Amino acid sequence: MSQCPGEAGPVSGKLIGVGTGPGDPELLTLKAVRAITGADVVACFAKRGNPSNARAIVAQHLRPGQIEEALDYPVTTEIHRHAGDYKTQIQAFYDEAAERLAAHLGAGRTVAVLSEGDPLLYGSYMHLHVRLAPRFETEVIPGISAMSGCWSAAGLPLVQGDDVLTILPGTLDEPELTRRLADTQGAVIMKLGRNLPKVRAALANAGRLDGALYVERGTMNNASTMALSRKVDDAAPYFSLVLVPGWSARP
Amino acid sequence: MSQCPGEAGPVSGKLIGVGTGPGDPELLTLKAVRAITGADVVACFAKRGNPSNARAIVAQHLRPGQIEEALDYPVTTEIHRHAGDYKTQIQAFYDEAAERLAAHLGAGRTVAVLSEGDPLLYGSYMHLHVRLAPRFETEVIPGISAMSGCWSAAGLPLVQGDDVLTILPGTLDEPELTRRLADTQGAVIMKLGRNLPKVRAALANAGRLDGALYVERGTMNNASTMALSRKVDDAAPYFSLVLVPGWSARP
Repeated sequence: MSQCPGEAGPVSGKLIGVGTGPGDPELLTLKAVRAITGADVVACFAKRGNPSNARAIVAQHLRPGQIEEALDYPVTTEIHRHAGDYKTQIQAFYDEAAERLAAHLGAGRTVAVLSEGDPLLYGSYMHLHVRLAPRFETEVIPGISAMSGCWSAAGLPLVQGDDVLTILPGTLDEPELTRRLADTQGAVIMKLGRNLPKVRAALANAGRLDGALYVERGTMNNASTMALSRKVDDAAPYFSLVLVPGWSARP
Repeated sequence: MSQCPGEAGPVSGKLIGVGTGPGDPELLTLKAVRAITGADVVACFAKRGNPSNARAIVAQHLRPGQIEEALDYPVTTEIHRHAGDYKTQIQAFYDEAAERLAAHLGAGRTVAVLSEGDPLLYGSYMHLHVRLAPRFETEVIPGISAMSGCWSAAGLPLVQGDDVLTILPGTLDEPELTRRLADTQGAVIMKLGRNLPKVRAALANAGRLDGALYVERGTMNNASTMALSRKVDDAAPYFSLVLVPGWSARP
């Protein structure tokens, strides 16, 4: 937007959604590092009382004197996400977080919001983005997604050519998971946790259990990858993934 | 693998698939830069007679004295990809390319194969990976995908919560595109080119044309983004994308 010459308009800061990638600090982009070191304010989400994963990923790039804003979720998995209470609390939280950042932006500060993985792909940052983008300049720096970190760590060619790739939350019910798994070439199933037995059954029903790979802590030093059919227990952290490779017509 | 003490076994190199991201050199990861500068051999794919896009992205990180291997596709869009001739020629090309790299790997050299976007997500690198991984140590460094570069450049929150995300090639026929677009929350449609009129019709039939965003050169300096419903012509480069946001239940 242009300003009239001589008119001293308000100076506004810039909101930057910074993808920090899936966990390995080396998977930060050059652009993310530059944005983090150059920001006046660095904000990050965390579960109350827990350290922020995103902050740990970028810790070595933070400068002394930078303002930090910790955005602590009031609830995470204690209340079901479709419950009315959850929606009310989480909406109020995003509203309040956006206003805290708006105060910095209004004062002309550049605010980097750290976002694990890729900010606009299932990321919390987007809740701030939609609230602040109408009022302030924004930039989004993409990050390596958790799923990409996982298939890369596993060395698993996922999809090629004209393959359809479907990203599915493990929270879908079993018939729906089965239907969708039978109707795609490649698939990624997120949000495993207690959903693993159901996901396993859906893969078997869809004829896709063979080839399905279970990946835990995909881009940490202690990553674990195994054929899902060989995993004997049903214990899975929430952020583990199942990968179903497509690419049936290899040239 | 361990070696018996005193036994001078063969020294083998390492194959590294390096995601270079979608175009902006700043979207390289720190890990990619380290792999490129440390490699003995840097290989990249290109259309014969054309410069490699991936090489241009990393050019400033190449060292004098590094061996370069240009892997020039014998055919790209001149022959339809389902034609027998195409398959025969492209198989022979990947076989020959893998053997060229195997010679370096057998001599103990580290070989970085540049891959635009993310190597194992619709990337040519995977054709070399499946040929060489059984014989040599491999590592895959994920990259920012073209689609992620596009939704970030557009500032478009794509999917959230329990949304299903479907990645579709524009080469599918219109009824199939329509069926899948009507049955997903978020969608990305790749490989537009001459398929754009068909994609537009499928989106309209599925009731998803409103909200669909057309993105051209997503992470170049001359990126162009517009509502698909406002795009008056049907000209689209092959690497343009259509993004269909999910996230219907914003908290």
